[in-house]
Amino acid sequence: MLRYPWIYLCLYLRFSRLFFMRYSKLFGRTKLEAPHDSDSINAKYLTQAGFADKLTAGVYYFLPLGLRVLEKVKNIIREEMNAVEGQEILMPSLHPLELWETTGRNKTADAILYRTKGAGDKDFVFGPSHEEAVTPLAAKFVKSYKDLPFSVYQIQTKFRNEPRAKSGLLRGREFGMKDMYSFHTSDADLDLYYERVKEAYMNVYRRCGLTAYVVEAGGGIFSDKLSHEFSVETVAGEDKIMVCKKCNVAQNLEVAEGKIHNPHADEKELPMKEVKVEREFNIEASAKAHDVPETKVLKTIIYKVGGGFVGVCIRGDLQVNEYKLGKFLGAEIRTASPKELEELGLVQGFISPVGMQNVTGGPKHKPGEVAGAEGLSFIGDNSIKEVKNFVTGANKKNVDLINVNVGRDFVIETFADFLTVEKGFKCSKCDLPLEEIKAVEAGNIFKLGTKYSKNFDLYFTNEKGERNLVVMGCYGIGTTRMVGTIVEASHDEKGIIWPKSVAPFLVHMMHLGEDEAVKSEAEKIYKELLKAGVEVLYDDRNDSAGKKFNDADLIGIPLRITISNRTLKEGSVEWKLRNEKDGKLVKLDKVLGEIKDFVNS
Amino acid sequence: MLRYPWIYLCLYLRFSRLFFMRYSKLFGRTKLEAPHDSDSINAKYLTQAGFADKLTAGVYYFLPLGLRVLEKVKNIIREEMNAVEGQEILMPSLHPLELWETTGRNKTADAILYRTKGAGDKDFVFGPSHEEAVTPLAAKFVKSYKDLPFSVYQIQTKFRNEPRAKSGLLRGREFGMKDMYSFHTSDADLDLYYERVKEAYMNVYRRCGLTAYVVEAGGGIFSDKLSHEFSVETVAGEDKIMVCKKCNVAQNLEVAEGKIHNPHADEKELPMKEVKVEREFNIEASAKAHDVPETKVLKTIIYKVGGGFVGVCIRGDLQVNEYKLGKFLGAEIRTASPKELEELGLVQGFISPVGMQNVTGGPKHKPGEVAGAEGLSFIGDNSIKEVKNFVTGANKKNVDLINVNVGRDFVIETFADFLTVEKGFKCSKCDLPLEEIKAVEAGNIFKLGTKYSKNFDLYFTNEKGERNLVVMGCYGIGTTRMVGTIVEASHDEKGIIWPKSVAPFLVHMMHLGEDEAVKSEAEKIYKELLKAGVEVLYDDRNDSAGKKFNDADLIGIPLRITISNRTLKEGSVEWKLRNEKDGKLVKLDKVLGEIKDFVNS
Repeated sequence: MLRYPWIYLCLYLRFSRLFFMRYSKLFGRTKLEAPHDSDSINAKYLTQAGFADKLTAGVYYFLPLGLRVLEKVKNIIREEMNAVEGQEILMPSLHPLELWETTGRNKTADAILYRTKGAGDKDFVFGPSHEEAVTPLAAKFVKSYKDLPFSVYQIQTKFRNEPRAKSGLLRGREFGMKDMYSFHTSDADLDLYYERVKEAYMNVYRRCGLTAYVVEAGGGIFSDKLSHEFSVETVAGEDKIMVCKKCNVAQNLEVAEGKIHNPHADEKELPMKEVKVEREFNIEASAKAHDVPETKVLKTIIYKVGGGFVGVCIRGDLQVNEYKLGKFLGAEIRTASPKELEELGLVQGFISPVGMQNVTGGPKHKPGEVAGAEGLSFIGDNSIKEVKNFVTGANKKNVDLINVNVGRDFVIETFADFLTVEKGFKCSKCDLPLEEIKAVEAGNIFKLGTKYSKNFDLYFTNEKGERNLVVMGCYGIGTTRMVGTIVEASHDEKGIIWPKSVAPFLVHMMHLGEDEAVKSEAEKIYKELLKAGVEVLYDDRNDSAGKKFNDADLIGIPLRITISNRTLKEGSVEWKLRNEKDGKLVKLDKVLGEIKDFVNS
Repeated sequence: MLRYPWIYLCLYLRFSRLFFMRYSKLFGRTKLEAPHDSDSINAKYLTQAGFADKLTAGVYYFLPLGLRVLEKVKNIIREEMNAVEGQEILMPSLHPLELWETTGRNKTADAILYRTKGAGDKDFVFGPSHEEAVTPLAAKFVKSYKDLPFSVYQIQTKFRNEPRAKSGLLRGREFGMKDMYSFHTSDADLDLYYERVKEAYMNVYRRCGLTAYVVEAGGGIFSDKLSHEFSVETVAGEDKIMVCKKCNVAQNLEVAEGKIHNPHADEKELPMKEVKVEREFNIEASAKAHDVPETKVLKTIIYKVGGGFVGVCIRGDLQVNEYKLGKFLGAEIRTASPKELEELGLVQGFISPVGMQNVTGGPKHKPGEVAGAEGLSFIGDNSIKEVKNFVTGANKKNVDLINVNVGRDFVIETFADFLTVEKGFKCSKCDLPLEEIKAVEAGNIFKLGTKYSKNFDLYFTNEKGERNLVVMGCYGIGTTRMVGTIVEASHDEKGIIWPKSVAPFLVHMMHLGEDEAVKSEAEKIYKELLKAGVEVLYDDRNDSAGKKFNDADLIGIPLRITISNRTLKEGSVEWKLRNEKDGKLVKLDKVLGEIKDFVNS
């Protein structure tokens, strides 16, 4: 007893969760039909299999099976937050309204706030997030640089009045969340910690059996952004993202950047020449007419922007990303109509910036600047910078220019990334081809800086005795949403396929038929598993094999062990993994050992 | 690895909570001053020691130390609920208002409900209790008697708009609670389960280091009541209760029943006689005048009840409990004025029922019956049933009656318990003397019967195919309140004294002074303790011995280990238990072993 005290501590902790259960006694068994109103795979399977149940839109009960999964997810998160020295606390949901007035989020977040009145006619908000709670708390304890850095987190219920709750556990009005807040003396210290948390988040997803990517929210990979999202690959995700499976980074399609091959940079510039052509009005036809690859065709698209026009030049084989373009110009955009092109003196199918710049003299562009009220100006995608000897139209019907060179034959003052990144583009970091996947967002992290410190007078005194604002970061991951995300990522047409790390039980045992010899063998194995501390769900019902197999597939426990007359004739049980098609027979005297191996593998 | 798979499971679970901490890194350290507005010992110590912090009245943060205690309390509760086959679930806080309209509690509990409006102008209530949530959930799964009985519980946050939040964690507006609900085919089955839960609750209190008593809410011990409270002995509790420390039962003072000694039952009845006396108007004087003990004096007190009067006869040494009397009569009562006594033909100081019954002919009384509109009637406390040869007044000035016997000389139709039970009275069950203690309520259990089943159509089909309402019980225990209660029950003038089972850490280690040899020895022991899996808080600060000792006393961890120059000179550390006055020296090579013994004892 003295030699291994921790064993007893462990036993103590272990028994605080039941690790075995008879299915006949379980509250929340499978339903024959999926709920008619389930709008997602996770809602459908979690409800039908008895993990969760909807009370009202966006508000779910967790039944015993579901709570077991949720607790395992929470523990994985807890361990990873502890590993980056996060200290667990618990903050209230009831926030006096004054706190939210202090930050102004009573207005900016008004739509999602649940409000109430308490005793003495006092106004409260039910916390949808806890910056307003944690910052004044920190201000009570932080005086000096010696009190920094630190990081606190909680795993707690959040309330958000989502206009449209949807996708089962993915977008709820009441949901579980881990939110961590870190406090630093400088941006540099926050930056270091932020990267550690990013790693910790990736560990969480990996340990939950998920493939996750870091997505720079609203920016490319290398831009200096203040927040990141984590996207998890799923079959039917809401978002499409471009990912590099080597770098584990991902980009929203709209803003994705990618590296492009640059084939013609080394050519010598040849003299520009006008050539008569008869061709169709597209890039493929241009390339064919001049016997060049599409990469040598200069594509120019004219957009109506504000009161004027902008021509965007891009390499012929590439597409303009209008989201990027609109964001760059800071304005609504649309392609110019044939009539507008005509008024600008442009000839459809033969548009080119060559010779048009002096004519129209449009303004130069910087990011965020809308084109001038009138006129036409040209900007270029980075893809045209290095290409030599372009083919393009000559702004005359059936006349093209060849050997057109940027800088020599036309001037672009502003280059930027207006590229639509597609499958097959290379990662700008590692050169591997990017892949397009469907994903759901499963966490996000923010560099808050001093926004909230300023609101709540959270200062510290540095080594020189100067008072400075504390620099903050925050890090959120939905715990109940994670449960839904795992189901979205891991299922088949029969039901859920739980990763071992978060499965409600590791073994789903059952007997078939009502033969007493079979039942008693099953009971024996069940009891041996209990003794060995294996988490086991025992389907002890006298239902048909079909019903019991279907339920096991629906519930999705990793290992199914079946005992029947047929297997006993072979002195065996049937062993089947949920994520494999076929089972095998395992001899009775080997089964316990093999199950233990499986559990520990 | 294969031999003890559960060890690895345990290790896994164990690391999900940090079990060691340097005090210099801890978020939420001690404060020099207790909060000026703390209205209770638990609020004062928990705040000053850095376990909790008030956000607003009745709403607290739990800091790392406090959360550790809370989690240990929750785990004890969880284990005991699992032991009575409770299955843990998690229910939402957001309840559609319709659910509360269904039971009518939107009106009866209106004052404590936090209400809000959600998307689509939908009304919600934040659950102060979960009968309205669990009953419709059960109705989705219960069809037949085969689905019963079962019991589900959750450990979750409750919201109650208490008119006056007070006493720190004892009466909050947002608080943690374990609420369990059981479902049965019959009252008899509920009764059996109810008793099992009662035992489980007593285990919870015992394991949390508390002395608890079962109190029949609003009734005596043996009455057939539908709910029970659990009262925990504390120094400054809000309630006074009478307890039998053997039977572990307790009674609210107002309704307490006790056994009384009955000294004169065996005497022979003697002839009644009138005697002239000169005496004062009290029991002591009567006893002295006739040379009898006070137990032989018949005391009669006249009360004004409705339009008439009731005389209550009780043994001279006992006091009438006006709460019991009022409840029995179902009316407001007050003692009659001298003028009213005169009008009734009674002589103050010489009142007696003898000869008055035929004169006034008041109505007979049954429980809950108010006295008739007019007249005077007599009822008796059980204490006078067996006494022979009473002394009493003769309804004439300066005349007493002796040898008065109930039934022979006056008739009492209605006997009941009108006794004020005091310290020293014997337990009606076991004969041990009752004690009066201060206590706080720390849990309650209810037989709900079919009230909620009826509201939510929760029926089952029995063996005969008949549809019956499911019978329900519910069982509540405040988890955050428990933390406060433990502090109320276990502290001294220096701070908290945590029971080992719920202490945030088991060992509070510190070094004194800044001597490197001392610090390095302390670090060594700290690391050994980590390796041994001992939960340890290490005060690694360079503060004064006084500050560090005071903080240790305030925080209240069971074992304090101090390493200083002085102890190292003896090759020792100082060992001091928080609940003992003096420390001792323990040799360095023994300390790890002794700490392990302490942890496992």
